[in-house]
Amino acid sequence: MAIADRMAPLIGGSSAIRKMFEEGRQLAQEYGAENVYDFSLGNPSVPAPASVNETAVRLLRNEDPLYLHGYMNNSGFEETRQAVADDLNKRFGASFAMTDIIMTVGAAAGINDILHLFLNPGDEVIAFAPFFTEYRNYTIAAGGNLVAVPADMETFQLNIDALDALINEKTKIVIVNNPNNPTGVIYSGETLDRLEQVLEKAQKRIGHPIYVISDEPYRELVYDGCELPFMPDHIRNCLIVYSFSKSLSLPGERIGYVAVSPKIEDHDLVRDGIGVTNRIGSVNAPSLMQLVVRECLNDRPKIEVYDRNRRLLYGNLTKLGFDCLMPQGAFYLFVKSPLETSAAFVDAGRKEHILMVDAAGFACPGYVRLAYCVSTEMIERSYEAFRRLAKACGLEERK
Amino acid sequence: MAIADRMAPLIGGSSAIRKMFEEGRQLAQEYGAENVYDFSLGNPSVPAPASVNETAVRLLRNEDPLYLHGYMNNSGFEETRQAVADDLNKRFGASFAMTDIIMTVGAAAGINDILHLFLNPGDEVIAFAPFFTEYRNYTIAAGGNLVAVPADMETFQLNIDALDALINEKTKIVIVNNPNNPTGVIYSGETLDRLEQVLEKAQKRIGHPIYVISDEPYRELVYDGCELPFMPDHIRNCLIVYSFSKSLSLPGERIGYVAVSPKIEDHDLVRDGIGVTNRIGSVNAPSLMQLVVRECLNDRPKIEVYDRNRRLLYGNLTKLGFDCLMPQGAFYLFVKSPLETSAAFVDAGRKEHILMVDAAGFACPGYVRLAYCVSTEMIERSYEAFRRLAKACGLEERK
Repeated sequence: MAIADRMAPLIGGSSAIRKMFEEGRQLAQEYGAENVYDFSLGNPSVPAPASVNETAVRLLRNEDPLYLHGYMNNSGFEETRQAVADDLNKRFGASFAMTDIIMTVGAAAGINDILHLFLNPGDEVIAFAPFFTEYRNYTIAAGGNLVAVPADMETFQLNIDALDALINEKTKIVIVNNPNNPTGVIYSGETLDRLEQVLEKAQKRIGHPIYVISDEPYRELVYDGCELPFMPDHIRNCLIVYSFSKSLSLPGERIGYVAVSPKIEDHDLVRDGIGVTNRIGSVNAPSLMQLVVRECLNDRPKIEVYDRNRRLLYGNLTKLGFDCLMPQGAFYLFVKSPLETSAAFVDAGRKEHILMVDAAGFACPGYVRLAYCVSTEMIERSYEAFRRLAKACGLEERK
Repeated sequence: MAIADRMAPLIGGSSAIRKMFEEGRQLAQEYGAENVYDFSLGNPSVPAPASVNETAVRLLRNEDPLYLHGYMNNSGFEETRQAVADDLNKRFGASFAMTDIIMTVGAAAGINDILHLFLNPGDEVIAFAPFFTEYRNYTIAAGGNLVAVPADMETFQLNIDALDALINEKTKIVIVNNPNNPTGVIYSGETLDRLEQVLEKAQKRIGHPIYVISDEPYRELVYDGCELPFMPDHIRNCLIVYSFSKSLSLPGERIGYVAVSPKIEDHDLVRDGIGVTNRIGSVNAPSLMQLVVRECLNDRPKIEVYDRNRRLLYGNLTKLGFDCLMPQGAFYLFVKSPLETSAAFVDAGRKEHILMVDAAGFACPGYVRLAYCVSTEMIERSYEAFRRLAKACGLEERK
């Protein structure tokens, strides 16, 4: 077998995900799609704002195709990068230069670009459990090892003391995902200030910078008037990774950016380096979509739908006796398994045609993730199935 | 400095390219754009066929935005993959299944996906000089080493005996670029059959498969009625990497595919593995463009413009006394340096405001590359500048 040692285990792992997808299809065929309740996928259910397609059509009609579909600076159209910098500076009182913005093939490519820039074989990336499964795979593909900080099972905030103990000479990157997938938790400014204190001490100890990837695909999806802290205000060595997948409901288009904080150590080298790894990885972000998002930076899909779904699903499940975290952002509900293992709970759900994701994959067994970026009507329909599941798990309804 | 050892040299190297780009800008500012002759960039000068924008507008107007811009199977929309497979099967008598096609973020991502799948640290990728500069960078980013087969300076065909001597236990991949960038040469079916003989013996010798990446972004750009051999007919362990950058003039959109030959060793593992590395690298190819190319697979930009440019530039330069290869495909003219070094020749050209790329970067010093994907009018205008350059190099006009 000629396949790389580090990749071989990932190929087996991927078929588990596909298996779940196939099971959903099979259940729908067997029992009818209306009797299957698929909460497994983080695929936006609210369409892109109309301005996106209107802008795209106008550009396609009026602009020179050699400009629209052609190469630009590998880091992106300067007019888009300037618009992103201006927007961040205006919204957050930041001072990004146009050149601090590198347009990327979604957040995935942005994270890959950074990891490829920094990781020598065996270097370590630290993520706080529970975390997005792919962080581990991005790290492995770049030749590094992912180290998981155990979850703080009380608050699901950042377990900063545990982080401190894990930092060593091989630590290059820490990933923070705010709001968090899968918990929906928002990390507060105070939490991030504590993180910064620990990181500053650790960087002196190990003698090189630790860069923090602030992975912010859910930045615009916050509820109840919560304020999301602006990471570079709290963390010096911060690289923002952003995606328009959720803020403009464009997950398939693969459009996002890396914003290099002006304050970071070795700023010019890191900025130029990400430009290089981005060019090597994908040449540039898709051109038409770069020009579309430039004009739609502050447009949003109807996130009140997600908010309604959030309240409805949280209300239903807590009433039925489940323990859930009330999400402050993103579009996931994190539910504690009432059975001994989350795997058993996922199985029990499947018997009621409810598809949930075992949070063991997010390095947090004992919980499951429900994506509520689904139709409100499906959540309503699923109530009886959840009632049967609660009963099967021995739960009692709350008054 | 926290940057990975393998990446540090690439960051310095990239500023040389940017420097050239900046120099072109400066020259244009100083002397007027009409007095600068930029042959440095392989950016299509012929716009996308009208069908591309028409299809995009129709889809944007009529299709559900959740479908257009949403996630699909990470390897691509099944309807697009089926259309690509059907088209290849019809055109080349092949037998690709839908699942053998993985839609990618252009050819760059396709090559990266394959290298990340196969390369352990220190594994080797072999490319035939002269080759596209980025092959080396893709290989380094994936943790491997690129080994260059010296060019056959007589024919610029594949130097197969030299290849044989370079294959060892660490060899995982051989890259063939047909038609070739930067020479414009087409490798014949007989050449590829000889390559296959050597590879089959070598694979027995080293005990594992050597996969051949057939990098085919210029597949549709062939002239004089030349026939481009279909690689899987000649090479058993063949992975086609294709891009619509040139065939539909969409280089900025980043849309292409990997086609896994049904005959390759460990077929299912390789196919699934590329699906996984593609998912990890970029999640999926841009969704709207996947649906656009599906309907435009056999549309072409006006390649007769490139053909006209080819004849004109080749005719002008040979008349002035330069030695050039007559390109059979792609849109590059490969010119022998009349000065002792190609670096000196590039410098001499710059004095006449002619921007050429030193083929030392393609592992073939002594030559330069001229991209003739420019306006025909610029080629006409450049004649006098080339005349002065020829004179400065001591060349005599041919009758």
